[in-house]
Amino acid sequence: MMSGDCALCVLDAAEALWANDQCFVISADVTGVGTICRVIWRAHIREMSDLDAAARGAFMDIVWGVEAVLRTLTRPAKMNVASLGNQVPHLHWHVIPRYRDDAYFPETIWAPAHRDALTRPLQDTVLRAALEAGLGNQAKSPSIMA
Amino acid sequence: MMSGDCALCVLDAAEALWANDQCFVISADVTGVGTICRVIWRAHIREMSDLDAAARGAFMDIVWGVEAVLRTLTRPAKMNVASLGNQVPHLHWHVIPRYRDDAYFPETIWAPAHRDALTRPLQDTVLRAALEAGLGNQAKSPSIMA
Repeated sequence: MMSGDCALCVLDAAEALWANDQCFVISADVTGVGTICRVIWRAHIREMSDLDAAARGAFMDIVWGVEAVLRTLTRPAKMNVASLGNQVPHLHWHVIPRYRDDAYFPETIWAPAHRDALTRPLQDTVLRAALEAGLGNQAKSPSIMA
Repeated sequence: MMSGDCALCVLDAAEALWANDQCFVISADVTGVGTICRVIWRAHIREMSDLDAAARGAFMDIVWGVEAVLRTLTRPAKMNVASLGNQVPHLHWHVIPRYRDDAYFPETIWAPAHRDALTRPLQDTVLRAALEAGLGNQAKSPSIMA
């Protein structure tokens, strides 16, 4: 279920902000935008339609939980969510709060930048606590820590 | 549930490739890529986390059905799916087959083009029949035609 040359297979879910036994959540700061989250499926699966309906639903429930947490923390103009994977074909979701004055708005963050803009960072401790409150404390379940 | 100045609220679902009473599917040809689908929620709702879990699940079931149909028809290198809405904040999903030699690969279709490339069109009649076979013929149910 892992691919040796995949940049996501080698990530250690134990270092994630939040995890359950199917997926985990990490963050990244996008310059000119702010902190975004990525929700990464543990197994090396290529497409959402390769998952069965139950797994897909469980994955998306976490994505929507992360969206809700980021909305509450950042009060964005709009949320953007995307599963792309052209460069790393291992299922992962980008969950991106967008701001009217961010570097790319109203284009996607993959377009050329429109303007110089502040980067709105979230502290890991704040994000971790909010994810735990929003999604539950599944990271410490025995199945994960084993 | 409609917004008078919204470009998606004014679309006529009766002209869609496929529809049920919650959402409908249209297509567009992206130059240098090919035919993509958009799955549009009928009601003017801003974010996925504004839907209740049942509606969100029903919406995503259609998105995954469209993904499966497009995979079968196009045999892409990768599927890209995204809900953005910075310009039109009315829930809609882009379901995009990507090809190694398309104009943007491996970047997103919102990045600058890398190369000149063919546009791979799907015929509406083919796509409509495949959607009906994959998603069922809900478009002709009385609740839609009323």
